[in-house]
Amino acid sequence: MELFEKSAEIFENIIKIKPVMHNISNIVTANDCANITLACGGSPTMAEHPEEVEDITSACNGFVINMGMLRSHLVESMLKAGKRSNELGHPVVLDPVGAGAAKKRNEVLFQLIENIKFSVIRGNISEIKFLATGTSAAKGVDADESDKVTADNIDSVIEFAKNLSKKTGAVIAISGETDIIADANKAYIIKNGCAEMSRVTGTGCMLSSVVGTFISANKESILDATAVAFSAYGYAGELAYDKMKSKGEGTGSFRVYLMDYMSLMNDKLFKEGAKIEVR
Amino acid sequence: MELFEKSAEIFENIIKIKPVMHNISNIVTANDCANITLACGGSPTMAEHPEEVEDITSACNGFVINMGMLRSHLVESMLKAGKRSNELGHPVVLDPVGAGAAKKRNEVLFQLIENIKFSVIRGNISEIKFLATGTSAAKGVDADESDKVTADNIDSVIEFAKNLSKKTGAVIAISGETDIIADANKAYIIKNGCAEMSRVTGTGCMLSSVVGTFISANKESILDATAVAFSAYGYAGELAYDKMKSKGEGTGSFRVYLMDYMSLMNDKLFKEGAKIEVR
Amino acid sequence: MELFEKSAEIFENIIKIKPVMHNISNIVTANDCANITLACGGSPTMAEHPEEVEDITSACNGFVINMGMLRSHLVESMLKAGKRSNELGHPVVLDPVGAGAAKKRNEVLFQLIENIKFSVIRGNISEIKFLATGTSAAKGVDADESDKVTADNIDSVIEFAKNLSKKTGAVIAISGETDIIADANKAYIIKNGCAEMSRVTGTGCMLSSVVGTFISANKESILDATAVAFSAYGYAGELAYDKMKSKGEGTGSFRVYLMDYMSLMNDKLFKEGAKIEVR
Repeated sequence: MELFEKSAEIFENIIKIKPVMHNISNIVTANDCANITLACGGSPTMAEHPEEVEDITSACNGFVINMGMLRSHLVESMLKAGKRSNELGHPVVLDPVGAGAAKKRNEVLFQLIENIKFSVIRGNISEIKFLATGTSAAKGVDADESDKVTADNIDSVIEFAKNLSKKTGAVIAISGETDIIADANKAYIIKNGCAEMSRVTGTGCMLSSVVGTFISANKESILDATAVAFSAYGYAGELAYDKMKSKGEGTGSFRVYLMDYMSLMNDKLFKEGAKIEVR
Repeated sequence: MELFEKSAEIFENIIKIKPVMHNISNIVTANDCANITLACGGSPTMAEHPEEVEDITSACNGFVINMGMLRSHLVESMLKAGKRSNELGHPVVLDPVGAGAAKKRNEVLFQLIENIKFSVIRGNISEIKFLATGTSAAKGVDADESDKVTADNIDSVIEFAKNLSKKTGAVIAISGETDIIADANKAYIIKNGCAEMSRVTGTGCMLSSVVGTFISANKESILDATAVAFSAYGYAGELAYDKMKSKGEGTGSFRVYLMDYMSLMNDKLFKEGAKIEVR
Repeated sequence: MELFEKSAEIFENIIKIKPVMHNISNIVTANDCANITLACGGSPTMAEHPEEVEDITSACNGFVINMGMLRSHLVESMLKAGKRSNELGHPVVLDPVGAGAAKKRNEVLFQLIENIKFSVIRGNISEIKFLATGTSAAKGVDADESDKVTADNIDSVIEFAKNLSKKTGAVIAISGETDIIADANKAYIIKNGCAEMSRVTGTGCMLSSVVGTFISANKESILDATAVAFSAYGYAGELAYDKMKSKGEGTGSFRVYLMDYMSLMNDKLFKEGAKIEVR
């Protein structure tokens, strides 16, 4: 695997740079996002006051916008910090949580995409489809069954992701049972992860923070670093599930173990578990 | 036990419907509320921006208002989402956290009760008494000692709960060492749970989210579904305590195990542990 | 050790008084702060609406201001609750998270210090230096390497802390590998804790909530109670690290064990682990 030749360097860069990550997040998963950022080697800082976000983001290495819960002051803060990050050349991740779920949220989303250049847009298939088409079948924050990636439609989803990447300039990272990560020319298909991850809140939000950390230490390899982040995080989920299952435990323990394995993750462990194909 | 003939269906309906639950919560326990909603079979969505709550709640199956921490935009959001939920016939739960603790909070509380029809009002005895009488002995968010339900006063508390249910139209669910759940005609007394639950923040908030999930999948059996939710959650607490104690652990582990057992809860486990009487 | 003659009473007072603690915190660590307050024997209440903070704080025994994430309404709330706490003689703790990181945050910080009398100011060395000098080398929320307390500079840092205490009237509590806790005349040096604590978010915030609980039950012994709180919390971290390490686990489990050991902490355990010197 071509990516296996680069992954050692991707992990080393995180240790070397220990990127300081600005996250604008939500009241549900902010703690999880901060802890997973630390677990995977970054240093989180969460600021959202419109009058301080530019100062804060200037001292950081990257920025993650999580749309999980709109609050009124956040729009201005996201725009300011995003623009400043763009000026400084910091990688910026967009997690369009619940895209399509409400008119107001959709307006904000398109305002962000118009005004900020994103390095990676990461969401489930329903959220990403909404960004491209302006319509969605999803209810709540989970992907809709009718949108799911299957063996039958995977080629067209890859084509769709490559086109959306071409249009937006961002790596498009779609998570689900099968993850698809694409820029305009190349796509990774990743089959790590497990169903239990959808029984814990914030596993998507956390993944966006992990991606932010990986790419902010690897600015020249956004696509590759995103793929490694997805696969490593998914594999941490598999290990957490195996441990939970073997002890007859439930979702509380699973959540703890997911954090554990992410904090123990390294290139060796990643290579043992990665299930990645290139298209 | 009459309730044992219905409980299998109550659990099955949750699996079948997997209710999408809108929660307006607080910055302290929002993550716990989301995770316990998932653990007991629902799908949480947390939105609080006044301009999006109606859209969000419309795509849900039920709504939980947690008063845990007033922030200024929440009043409008709670009112809008509550009214919309009423229009759509969605069950609505009120958790009057800290009722009586501050003049402003009390005003908001009575404004909510006047404008929204609640299916269940769940709180500790001091909070519920405040709703009925406008006075409270409690400091902070715990029930006051002088209010506690004892063998001596339980009959009058049941009478009080039935009357309040008659007045409000909501099932009145009072949690404590002994829980009392009543509509105008019937009351359940539940003796599950353990003292350790008061050493973890948000165990009350989480219970309200569990109740919301149970009743939103069982709209025709609000009283029964609330009783099953209370008993199942309390029993999960007992199991968590036993495990924690046997391993010499503390409140951090207890909190993880509570989530574990709630995610493993089903009709069989519920029936093994339920301590429920009817009045 | 002189402090060992007082520590039993310090722990007993917490059990006797069970202080109700008002915390104004942030969306990242509010849950952790509430749970650690409970774990160490207090009762947390978190209110931040400007119209209710005075009522809430009046029914409490102490108040903790955490600057972790500025939101616009918090400035008014912090000022109101702080002044009311001062009027009532409640101990007030300031945690100047990220002091120096942004112009707006700095302005607020100095506004708080001008208007509120603090019992304890607890931060890392970069944050505390900023309060004294108005300049900082730190990026994000961690102390800067160039600021760190070493064998070479410890005498001057102690002198600095004593002077800042004289100037502000607050006990100055500096956390790091070596903690320094000083009033105008006396300093404690504490060598408990472990590096793993910086791999979990909110370990500083939690310490401030622990300090608040300890001093609010021990208003006549602010310096001593702060030192015991620091040492006990640090030792809980060491025990958590040992357990995590022996089981090959990661930061998720460490966080759970830290809470566990804090909830099991008592005078006996404290005396087994305390590493405290007096200057």
